[in-house]
Amino acid sequence: MGSVTGSVDLAGCERLQYDYGPDRMPKNRPVLFTMWRYRELLPIPDGPVRYPVPIGGTPLLHAPALRHALRTPHLWLKDETRNPSASNKDRATALVIEDGLRHGLRTITTASTGNAAVSTAFGAAAAGMRAVIFVSTDCSPEKLALMTQAGAWVFQARGGYAAAVDLSRTAARTFGWLDRNTGVNPVTIEAKKTVAFEVWEQLGRRLPDVVIVPVGDGPTLVALEKGFAELVSCGLTTRQPRLIGVQADRCQPLVRAWLGEPVRPAELDPAATLAGGIAVVRPAIGDAVLDAVRRTGGGMVPVTDDAMLSAAAALAGRAGVGAEPAGAAALAGLEAAVERGLADRSETLALLVTGRELKASDATYDPRRVTVAESLDDVERALSSRRGTTSGFSCSA
Amino acid sequence: MGSVTGSVDLAGCERLQYDYGPDRMPKNRPVLFTMWRYRELLPIPDGPVRYPVPIGGTPLLHAPALRHALRTPHLWLKDETRNPSASNKDRATALVIEDGLRHGLRTITTASTGNAAVSTAFGAAAAGMRAVIFVSTDCSPEKLALMTQAGAWVFQARGGYAAAVDLSRTAARTFGWLDRNTGVNPVTIEAKKTVAFEVWEQLGRRLPDVVIVPVGDGPTLVALEKGFAELVSCGLTTRQPRLIGVQADRCQPLVRAWLGEPVRPAELDPAATLAGGIAVVRPAIGDAVLDAVRRTGGGMVPVTDDAMLSAAAALAGRAGVGAEPAGAAALAGLEAAVERGLADRSETLALLVTGRELKASDATYDPRRVTVAESLDDVERALSSRRGTTSGFSCSA
Ligand SMILES: Cc1ncc(COP(=O)(O)O)c(C=O)c1O
Ligand SMILES: Cc1ncc(COP(=O)(O)O)c(C=O)c1O
Repeated sequence: MGSVTGSVDLAGCERLQYDYGPDRMPKNRPVLFTMWRYRELLPIPDGPVRYPVPIGGTPLLHAPALRHALRTPHLWLKDETRNPSASNKDRATALVIEDGLRHGLRTITTASTGNAAVSTAFGAAAAGMRAVIFVSTDCSPEKLALMTQAGAWVFQARGGYAAAVDLSRTAARTFGWLDRNTGVNPVTIEAKKTVAFEVWEQLGRRLPDVVIVPVGDGPTLVALEKGFAELVSCGLTTRQPRLIGVQADRCQPLVRAWLGEPVRPAELDPAATLAGGIAVVRPAIGDAVLDAVRRTGGGMVPVTDDAMLSAAAALAGRAGVGAEPAGAAALAGLEAAVERGLADRSETLALLVTGRELKASDATYDPRRVTVAESLDDVERALSSRRGTTSGFSCSA
Repeated sequence: MGSVTGSVDLAGCERLQYDYGPDRMPKNRPVLFTMWRYRELLPIPDGPVRYPVPIGGTPLLHAPALRHALRTPHLWLKDETRNPSASNKDRATALVIEDGLRHGLRTITTASTGNAAVSTAFGAAAAGMRAVIFVSTDCSPEKLALMTQAGAWVFQARGGYAAAVDLSRTAARTFGWLDRNTGVNPVTIEAKKTVAFEVWEQLGRRLPDVVIVPVGDGPTLVALEKGFAELVSCGLTTRQPRLIGVQADRCQPLVRAWLGEPVRPAELDPAATLAGGIAVVRPAIGDAVLDAVRRTGGGMVPVTDDAMLSAAAALAGRAGVGAEPAGAAALAGLEAAVERGLADRSETLALLVTGRELKASDATYDPRRVTVAESLDDVERALSSRRGTTSGFSCSA
């Protein structure tokens, strides 16, 4: 321990004193715990990592007060909000960019409902890449401010999220840009599977019984299943945890599909839920989600907005973890899973807290960086009209 | 590297395959890099750390694109926004609470303009403690929402920040609560000095030439000086980096005092700057700040709000680091310091990015947890009226 030997007053400020000596500092160098630890199972050649910001290695919290309140003695929170842009999207962003940097690409594109866009904008800025983001026209000015502050070029697709995805993917193919679209680039799954490796290591090379995850397009859950499956393939464990996917009851296509029931319009209304991050009408890899849930013996549950807000309040008030409603969905899903007999309070339960909404340092967005677009022509025109300006650029990758 | 051997399609999703085996996973256990690494120079007895959330061990970023843009080849960003409540306040919160838990205290109090309050609310929630926060009546509803969501009890002092500090300190003395007030509890300085140790270790046991820091009440800068001084006391280095303190030009009492010039009213108007975190009219340990700056051969510089907003945009757009205006003040201060000959672009420069403003998961605050108070009587009355309710409590520590 620190041997306090006394205290002195220095310019009116009390300073504790110790018995000083060179041994007071640790000898070993501090090592950052990041997702690059798993290089042997990532599609990245040897050599130094170029991505300049540490990613992953997020805490697995034992949350004593929350455990007590919920009567779940073996609950764990995998706090993905501790990534630089406060969501698990940063893992995918980093690995996609690392891959792109090694291929000499200079521009990255994605469509997103929110967190992936913010993560891409910040990640590209850190790596000195250009980000071209496609959002729907109802993207909030605050989110636009975050993106443009990080220097991204933003296109608002009139046809909503689906049209934004189409435009982004077409642009990537046409201009040779790095395609970070979720569920498209297999590298995003590779990045997100590291969460499974971390949980296993953080539990002392043991697996939880159940992992609960919010599901939007699907990669977060599917990647977890791949990670756990790879631990089995490596011969390091023999079974997989049951995966439980959580969707908002107002946009729950995969819960209905899981139950083999038709979806009613009120269950497919992304605008009706606060959980924007997981409100996806046509999940990019929905079949793979259902397959992963089935193979692990898990399930899919719907949760109300109220349940997610209560879960966010419980995470903040009982564990000191801030989360947006979609980020807190796993905790809301725990109650639903227990009710349905999919999980038991006495099991080892790992909950992914996937995201926390961020604020821009300035409420306004730069309108020069935001354009409404209906076609690739609109994109090309807007970008080339900026060619030659200091902040503009051509469409080439 | 990861040896990708092929890829398979699983339920419509492409999955990369590797040559699997037990050696693909690292053998050593992952170690979190946290401030507890410096236990030998912290006033905490041996035994397991009780504070349940990892704190500190924040990245020291080399920010290549920002270096290039600023022509500062040896610039480093110490990214304190990567702490759980997104500011360096979390270090002080954690050490004070650790100390309190070991003394069996159950309630922590502080007055704050913002980040320290949020940090205390979240930290107390994580540790299962009760937080009683004193703010001024002009504290924004959004900040109140963050605090009450984390379960804190909030008192709004009509007399502004100074009155809030008085009330919080009197309450701590009267009720035996843990006093986290900045500049009062020497433990807060002990916690924040770990930033100096980390920078030194992260540079390979070398010191930067200059460290630039935003200054409000003073503990951040004073603690850095103490940390570097302790490295000298330990015989691990012989000199200290020059410390440069930064204040908003609209509230710059310490810059004026440093220059030996009188302060004009327009230079002492905390409401006039966006940099709330550093706008303190009567800094708690101002003399210690001036002393630390003098002894290290540094200086004090003022910056405009515009310069802080540009700095925040540069941090986001060139380094992928989100910061609030006060959190970006060190970068704004770099330009001011270079202009004044206090620092040179070719030196090894470490900039503290101290904070990023957070959002509550829900915009509204719980009015039952917020009370206006003018005296300790008001506090006692409000708290005892809640005694017996499930969420209420008595004044005893
Ligand atoms: C906070 C949050 N949680 C969960 C998800 C779901 O992730 P996925 O699309 O991988 O299913 C998202 C996706 O945007 C998100 O933003
Ligand atoms: C973002 C930010 N930066 C810097 C400071 C200044 O810290 P100190 O009061 O230790 O001088 C604060 C204090 O509230 C802050 O919130």
